[in-house]
Amino acid sequence: MVRVVDPADITAIVNTGDDMILHGLAISPDIDTVTYTLAGMNNTETGWGLAGESFTAMTELEAIGGEFWFRLGDRDLATHLYRTQRLAEGATLSAVTAEVAARRGVGVKLLPMSDQPVRTMVTLAGEGEPEVGFQHYFVRLRHSVAVRSVRFEGADSAAAAPGVLEAIDRAHTVVVCPSNPIVSIGPILAIDGVRDALVRRRDDVVAVSPIVAGRALKGPADRLLVELGHDSSVVGVARLYADWVGTLVIDEADAGLADAVRAVGLRCAVTPTVMTDAGRAAALARSVFAARD
Amino acid sequence: MVRVVDPADITAIVNTGDDMILHGLAISPDIDTVTYTLAGMNNTETGWGLAGESFTAMTELEAIGGEFWFRLGDRDLATHLYRTQRLAEGATLSAVTAEVAARRGVGVKLLPMSDQPVRTMVTLAGEGEPEVGFQHYFVRLRHSVAVRSVRFEGADSAAAAPGVLEAIDRAHTVVVCPSNPIVSIGPILAIDGVRDALVRRRDDVVAVSPIVAGRALKGPADRLLVELGHDSSVVGVARLYADWVGTLVIDEADAGLADAVRAVGLRCAVTPTVMTDAGRAAALARSVFAARD
Repeated sequence: MVRVVDPADITAIVNTGDDMILHGLAISPDIDTVTYTLAGMNNTETGWGLAGESFTAMTELEAIGGEFWFRLGDRDLATHLYRTQRLAEGATLSAVTAEVAARRGVGVKLLPMSDQPVRTMVTLAGEGEPEVGFQHYFVRLRHSVAVRSVRFEGADSAAAAPGVLEAIDRAHTVVVCPSNPIVSIGPILAIDGVRDALVRRRDDVVAVSPIVAGRALKGPADRLLVELGHDSSVVGVARLYADWVGTLVIDEADAGLADAVRAVGLRCAVTPTVMTDAGRAAALARSVFAARD
Repeated sequence: MVRVVDPADITAIVNTGDDMILHGLAISPDIDTVTYTLAGMNNTETGWGLAGESFTAMTELEAIGGEFWFRLGDRDLATHLYRTQRLAEGATLSAVTAEVAARRGVGVKLLPMSDQPVRTMVTLAGEGEPEVGFQHYFVRLRHSVAVRSVRFEGADSAAAAPGVLEAIDRAHTVVVCPSNPIVSIGPILAIDGVRDALVRRRDDVVAVSPIVAGRALKGPADRLLVELGHDSSVVGVARLYADWVGTLVIDEADAGLADAVRAVGLRCAVTPTVMTDAGRAAALARSVFAARD
């Protein structure tokens, strides 16, 4: 998208339901992934963390018996040290996010969905139905377990971060990236005022389906949808988003379902959506804006 | 000392007044220095941290505008991550210290002076007389400023850690290492019951003077003594320790002051005290035990 419009005209509202405190450090995985990606520092092979990262601290932590399932690279650690120190000094997550983005040369305005902690909690299916934090499910268990339910702890009392509702109100187009509807988009919708703001802008909200040919390109979105009673298809996504999304962009692989999406009440655009390189990603961004116009 | 007696027969009671929370991490510099040194992992060139350490995280932290005056190495960070996580889980500092020491293969029993936080606070001389934490004074300001006073925040309500008073009560010899009397030995003495236990064992308490020929071998002990109204000499140390130390071991360079030490009421042994290598350190340990016998 930053290749198609001026980055200064983009505001990214980022999920913080994945955030956690680990080893005393305030970790915001989605904010960091967006920051690193926009800064061109991301590891494109693993899909997380920094390119050329080292893991000296984690290797040592493993040696002394610490928890090392959430792999924090040495350079990545600096981000968490910085964030934790600033939060302890009284800075908001919004402020810290802006500071780090500026230091990384990110031109897009990055906003956490909220400055208050919201935690995506996952109840696992099976014996005892334990409830675990999202990263426990996603990273530690490698999302290889069935899910009974999902809730967003703290969302009831969390306010949208400064600028979030304004950005939705004022945007030419609100783009919903092809992200997990349940655990990535869901937490943002759970923040007071966000869903209402989106409903008001419904005609200008364009979502890209994270489901292509019935499957998530990565992660557990397809299984989660089914486990929670939805269809793992562009139609299932359309039904979930119908109240607040005007247009759903689906992949050419799902062209045959375009009319079914329209039957749910959304406009539907068909285009290649799999972002295998920057050129295809830019083309998708153009298609998204064209679908809105 | 571990070359002279069985390490399993040694209990080290370690100052935690230097501890601090930085970047959200629980840092115990003295415990770590003792652990790393006994594990043979210490950096003998710098006098702090680990040999062969890397500073990837700190370099990155500096790049994004974080506080980097307290240099945490990548491997060293693992210790702080582990300690912070375990304390958050409810473990005591004693327990965490024992766990790390065991993982590092340390045979000496290491005890923090207290499981409750005690913070050595330093009031600086000069304009405004600001009060700062010990590491701010020691590391950030490189102890190159005059000190008006020192206090041990939290010491009034801190209890000796489990085993501390028992170790003093039962030891064949209580050895006071050649450490800063004000800010390294002082915090331990400030813990309820410690001074009384030492007074009871006074005949069996042997201290090695940290002052040689009027100077500290390293650090600000000599200036601190003078700034706080004491003599920077073995006699000054003897006066500070007279109530609870039976024997003061002084360096040959101070042989001429042995009678002045005795005049304060302590026995005095004269021997080489400068530990330039392991052999000289072992010889000093033998002299210390001989002075007690």
